[in-house]
Amino acid sequence: MTQIDFILLLRIINLKIMNLMDKYLEIRNYSIDICKPLKTEDYIPQPAFFGSPPKWNLGHTTWFFEEMILKKYVKSYKVFHPKYSFLFNSYYNTIGERVARDGRGDLSRPTVDEVYEYRKYVDSEMSKLLSAIEPTEELLFLVELGLNHEQQHQELFFSDLKYAFSINPLLPAYSNKAFCETPAGNDGWIEISEGTYPIGYSGNDFSYDNETPVHQVFLKEFQISRKLVSNGEFIEFIESGGYENDKYWHDDAWIWLKKEKISKPMYWHKVDGSWHQYTLAGLKKISPNNALCHISYYEAFAFAQFKNLRLPTEFEWEAAADQFNWGDRWEWTESAYLPYPGYQKAEGAVGEYNGKFMVNQKVLRGASVTTSPNHSRKTYRNFFHPQMGWQFNGIRLAK
Amino acid sequence: MTQIDFILLLRIINLKIMNLMDKYLEIRNYSIDICKPLKTEDYIPQPAFFGSPPKWNLGHTTWFFEEMILKKYVKSYKVFHPKYSFLFNSYYNTIGERVARDGRGDLSRPTVDEVYEYRKYVDSEMSKLLSAIEPTEELLFLVELGLNHEQQHQELFFSDLKYAFSINPLLPAYSNKAFCETPAGNDGWIEISEGTYPIGYSGNDFSYDNETPVHQVFLKEFQISRKLVSNGEFIEFIESGGYENDKYWHDDAWIWLKKEKISKPMYWHKVDGSWHQYTLAGLKKISPNNALCHISYYEAFAFAQFKNLRLPTEFEWEAAADQFNWGDRWEWTESAYLPYPGYQKAEGAVGEYNGKFMVNQKVLRGASVTTSPNHSRKTYRNFFHPQMGWQFNGIRLAK
Amino acid sequence: MTQIDFILLLRIINLKIMNLMDKYLEIRNYSIDICKPLKTEDYIPQPAFFGSPPKWNLGHTTWFFEEMILKKYVKSYKVFHPKYSFLFNSYYNTIGERVARDGRGDLSRPTVDEVYEYRKYVDSEMSKLLSAIEPTEELLFLVELGLNHEQQHQELFFSDLKYAFSINPLLPAYSNKAFCETPAGNDGWIEISEGTYPIGYSGNDFSYDNETPVHQVFLKEFQISRKLVSNGEFIEFIESGGYENDKYWHDDAWIWLKKEKISKPMYWHKVDGSWHQYTLAGLKKISPNNALCHISYYEAFAFAQFKNLRLPTEFEWEAAADQFNWGDRWEWTESAYLPYPGYQKAEGAVGEYNGKFMVNQKVLRGASVTTSPNHSRKTYRNFFHPQMGWQFNGIRLAK
Amino acid sequence: MTQIDFILLLRIINLKIMNLMDKYLEIRNYSIDICKPLKTEDYIPQPAFFGSPPKWNLGHTTWFFEEMILKKYVKSYKVFHPKYSFLFNSYYNTIGERVARDGRGDLSRPTVDEVYEYRKYVDSEMSKLLSAIEPTEELLFLVELGLNHEQQHQELFFSDLKYAFSINPLLPAYSNKAFCETPAGNDGWIEISEGTYPIGYSGNDFSYDNETPVHQVFLKEFQISRKLVSNGEFIEFIESGGYENDKYWHDDAWIWLKKEKISKPMYWHKVDGSWHQYTLAGLKKISPNNALCHISYYEAFAFAQFKNLRLPTEFEWEAAADQFNWGDRWEWTESAYLPYPGYQKAEGAVGEYNGKFMVNQKVLRGASVTTSPNHSRKTYRNFFHPQMGWQFNGIRLAK
Repeated sequence: MTQIDFILLLRIINLKIMNLMDKYLEIRNYSIDICKPLKTEDYIPQPAFFGSPPKWNLGHTTWFFEEMILKKYVKSYKVFHPKYSFLFNSYYNTIGERVARDGRGDLSRPTVDEVYEYRKYVDSEMSKLLSAIEPTEELLFLVELGLNHEQQHQELFFSDLKYAFSINPLLPAYSNKAFCETPAGNDGWIEISEGTYPIGYSGNDFSYDNETPVHQVFLKEFQISRKLVSNGEFIEFIESGGYENDKYWHDDAWIWLKKEKISKPMYWHKVDGSWHQYTLAGLKKISPNNALCHISYYEAFAFAQFKNLRLPTEFEWEAAADQFNWGDRWEWTESAYLPYPGYQKAEGAVGEYNGKFMVNQKVLRGASVTTSPNHSRKTYRNFFHPQMGWQFNGIRLAK
Repeated sequence: MTQIDFILLLRIINLKIMNLMDKYLEIRNYSIDICKPLKTEDYIPQPAFFGSPPKWNLGHTTWFFEEMILKKYVKSYKVFHPKYSFLFNSYYNTIGERVARDGRGDLSRPTVDEVYEYRKYVDSEMSKLLSAIEPTEELLFLVELGLNHEQQHQELFFSDLKYAFSINPLLPAYSNKAFCETPAGNDGWIEISEGTYPIGYSGNDFSYDNETPVHQVFLKEFQISRKLVSNGEFIEFIESGGYENDKYWHDDAWIWLKKEKISKPMYWHKVDGSWHQYTLAGLKKISPNNALCHISYYEAFAFAQFKNLRLPTEFEWEAAADQFNWGDRWEWTESAYLPYPGYQKAEGAVGEYNGKFMVNQKVLRGASVTTSPNHSRKTYRNFFHPQMGWQFNGIRLAK
Repeated sequence: MTQIDFILLLRIINLKIMNLMDKYLEIRNYSIDICKPLKTEDYIPQPAFFGSPPKWNLGHTTWFFEEMILKKYVKSYKVFHPKYSFLFNSYYNTIGERVARDGRGDLSRPTVDEVYEYRKYVDSEMSKLLSAIEPTEELLFLVELGLNHEQQHQELFFSDLKYAFSINPLLPAYSNKAFCETPAGNDGWIEISEGTYPIGYSGNDFSYDNETPVHQVFLKEFQISRKLVSNGEFIEFIESGGYENDKYWHDDAWIWLKKEKISKPMYWHKVDGSWHQYTLAGLKKISPNNALCHISYYEAFAFAQFKNLRLPTEFEWEAAADQFNWGDRWEWTESAYLPYPGYQKAEGAVGEYNGKFMVNQKVLRGASVTTSPNHSRKTYRNFFHPQMGWQFNGIRLAK
Repeated sequence: MTQIDFILLLRIINLKIMNLMDKYLEIRNYSIDICKPLKTEDYIPQPAFFGSPPKWNLGHTTWFFEEMILKKYVKSYKVFHPKYSFLFNSYYNTIGERVARDGRGDLSRPTVDEVYEYRKYVDSEMSKLLSAIEPTEELLFLVELGLNHEQQHQELFFSDLKYAFSINPLLPAYSNKAFCETPAGNDGWIEISEGTYPIGYSGNDFSYDNETPVHQVFLKEFQISRKLVSNGEFIEFIESGGYENDKYWHDDAWIWLKKEKISKPMYWHKVDGSWHQYTLAGLKKISPNNALCHISYYEAFAFAQFKNLRLPTEFEWEAAADQFNWGDRWEWTESAYLPYPGYQKAEGAVGEYNGKFMVNQKVLRGASVTTSPNHSRKTYRNFFHPQMGWQFNGIRLAK
């Protein structure tokens, strides 16, 4: 390498670091921005095992950088607090930790201020690290992973907070914005012809391991709806007895529905004879033309049966995604969450990120009104157990 | 009535009201004083169904005055908030409320500040009420009841907070005072001769309905220990295999012990081979000569069996209470919590105070280090289900 | 001792043994007699943890004689089957055994015939033993205990079988006799004057340790009803909303009632607008004048509250028992099941018989239509947890 | 149609009916044959929700013909018993029925003899029906479906009985044949080249709707093992700590394993230091060279991870199935149980057969030592929830 080359290379790396630090701070600060409307008390409760308190989210996303990067890359790194590794770790798989997973809302300490101090400390250490050394590919990847991880928790922040507020008889509002009043869109079917389509991520930017490797999938001709299912359409399903007719439902769905006494979508309430829903702006009357939200896979499937239609597979969705608008609702697909052919799980803790969830879950495609900026692409695979509806999920039909 | 008589009567009533207001404020302010060491976050979590968060305690004791007194005695009383009656009510017996009973820690709102505002408002209204009218017997009784109720919750504040802190891996301290380091006392047995003894409250001050009517109970000769059982004695029980030997235990106790995997008293931990306990001053080494604390009835009974002794009945305890020191530990008795002969439950919501708990519970006598000032007397009957050990309970043996 | 004396003594002992063998065979055969209407299939299921299958009852009562007597008194006794000690033991307190307690209906083997073989073998060995040796006091006591134990299981046979048949949609009948169609009796109150009454067993025949020692109890004047509560009276309670009004119920009762969705007595069904009950003779229309049956303590207490009356204590019941008819319904009392003053638990396994149940249970007095002949006396103390109603329980009121 | 044609057609139909009746009786009688070693008692218990008692299986398979065929095709058909439709129905989806699903072992009646009478009655009516009328395509299909349904329950008979016997401390034997002592086979990998393969059933005989429509699937090159995983290989997994290392397990699997305390395959016991397994011939020492049996998908996946290999997809399995021996173990695949492209659920109750289970389950391919004669083909898709191991399941690896 000539000296010129070397200087050029340094410049490129610097530029990359500069950009990375900008991006790092932008994403890290966004986590703080979205917490601004909160009272100290709002950071604490965890009313359901599937959600986490804002305080824990702020600590956990910070722990990721400390645990995965600072401990490895900064010699004689001094952890902010010796117990935080245990408190903010969601990975370590013991019975003890499982209890903790349901018990994040039982812990008043550390205080909210202490968690913000923790964030400051880690951000400062990260900044020092990224300025001091020539970053390896691995380090750059881990920073990217940490930031994408944080964006996922930013999204969860909205759904978890909504749930926590929704069970409070005072029905508090987070903002003036309801976050789920998107129009369903216009009617119409998009036809996709039979053929082999490339599926999976093939670009140079960040993607999760579960989006790779890119591979060919053969699809028969199909049609996919231009619009999302609207609230009004779902009201028809309810009012024609959809929740009482087992022929629309999977066997497991029916057991769930009976056990949990489900007869309407999450957050829906009938007030004085008309349908309302709890939103992040408080209780609001439902608009029939808006896109349905907070629907479980079980309900999405039952609704499709009711319409004599079906959900698309994730492959169909991806093949057609350039031809319709998406990004307001995570959209349930009929596909089970499975590895792509040739998928390789990463070594170590990073490998726990995706692979170990590849059973019993369904794939969602798209993004939602609460997805962080620059955190969506058409190859992104989200996944949840089929009864989960607390995300901003919707339905797009196929045939 | 002559005019003089009338003036005298007014003076007496005023004095009574003055004293009452002093007492009212003293007790109400004590609830706030004991919360001073708390962070805002500490007011929120409820890690176990049997405890309540400090915020809820502060609201609930205030609700009592609003619901039982202000709504009845103040014409056109304006409630502080229309939903607080639901939020801070522990009585209303519906399935909904039952869920709420376990879910008090799930509610971030109202904020702590709002609850303090609520207290101010109710205290001010109570002050106006008591200055404005000539209080009836009933009103005086209800105020007394409300204050005694608040003192019970002050005591619960300590045990609930201790539990909430104890499950936090950070093991926070509430104060410098451990609150359970009382010496067990000196050996020796007090002999009480056979005879008939008066049991129950017969004075003119406040007592609960469950302490009445006073009645005669015939007791055979018995002996009761001068001292409480010490930590050291209980360590002997543990180390001789007491928790593994079913012959000491009730059948229900053994089922509980196996299911909950109980092998030591609540809050005890073996650290580096020596016994420690979590206290309100943090984790501390156990002193063998101090009185045992946080013991369930099941454990108290098993320990007595191990010593070939027994627990006293509540009648024996009361008959002998003038001859030993008590007041540091609630002391388990062998007596089931039952109505005294001729007991009459009060009408209305007040009648729910005691009578409806008179099944499946065991009587405790005495008081504890966390009992509020002026809230103990030898006829006082506390009661809990036999597996509950989170109060500052201890053991005194009899034979 | 003169020779005459000696001969006389031998005669007395022989007579005692003769009588004992007669009694032994009579009681043992009665267990078989009451099984005669059963099909082989009826011996197997255990639809609730609180009941046992007939096959298990037959094995368990036999195991008692093998385990407590034959193994100790017969040198080189050969057990019938090495695993039966484990299979038919209800005492051994381990988690494993607890599972077995709920799982007695999961075992098809040993077959019913094999269990009858087991009975024959043990009866034959018992017969040899009692003819061969001069029985000690202890042996005589153990035989008596074994027979009384068997009589208790004969009674349980009826309530357990009734429960097992009641949940079968075919509603099979055991016999032509319904076993719960006793008239409630005539109105009227018996007055008992204030005074000290002897309580407990003082005779020379067999009694359980929990009936002793006899002791004096001081009772205030009270009245006890001549009659049992009738079905008709309880229908009034139901129809006036008794199951929906929490003021009649204990707090624990209300939780139970809501959780289990209790709104009528066990075995009651409303068919075409009129109340029926499942009986051992099948489904029958309820007669308003007959004594109420299969009632839990919780319901008995709530009913007494509804009538502004109360349940008697077990001491009141015993003091008045000579003045009313009893024996058709186990009658709930207000008394908790506790040891009498001076009660001593027997050593060893026999000591597990009663003492370890003395918590969380309520005393019943009397006997029932299914009690074995010669197995009732007025000092007999039965006991169950307060929610249990599958025994032939009824209510007698006091005031 | 000429008269000759007509006569020929009648002959063909008769032949078809003759064959069908032969087949009907052969399959129906096989259900009775496999019950011959049972005692009456063995027909009753249901120790786990996932299994059914032999009595219920015999009744349920008979109910299928009564409900789906006789009631529709025989005018004025008289049901054998009006309640059997409720008792032996597994389809009707209400909470009540769900309870019954767990409670089949709680019912002693109808007796075993009565169920055999029921079979005779239905067989006789079926014989009359099939002789009397010219069978439609639909009727022929329903008879075929009923017979295939019965064969499925014949297979379940073995796995359910094995489970019921396995929890009995007497460890009874069903036969001299262990039913799970098949050699694992010889080492070696079969290579399958990249290409498009037809998947699904395309013949003229009976198949289930879930095997259709036949469709093309593109597969990349892969290798599949000639042999099944052996007991010896799985012992290596256990002894190298496989059950304690979360990196091999799915997240849901790890929760299951911790909750259920799983540390070895179902039916395995370590006796005096060497591995044994309960078989239908009693407890037997495990032979390392035999094929592993009774493994859940979770364990199969973890084992594959341990070997750095993977499970085949169901498409890979089907494409390669002609090149290896199969039929002794149901073989877990990585495929989720989903509809084939273009799958159409049948109308009515028959449509509940397969489609409603297409969520949360994994596909197994092959057949097992307990599969009924003539009830296997390479396109057959079996499916179970991933934790289920009570079938005779095994593992074949791929890479």
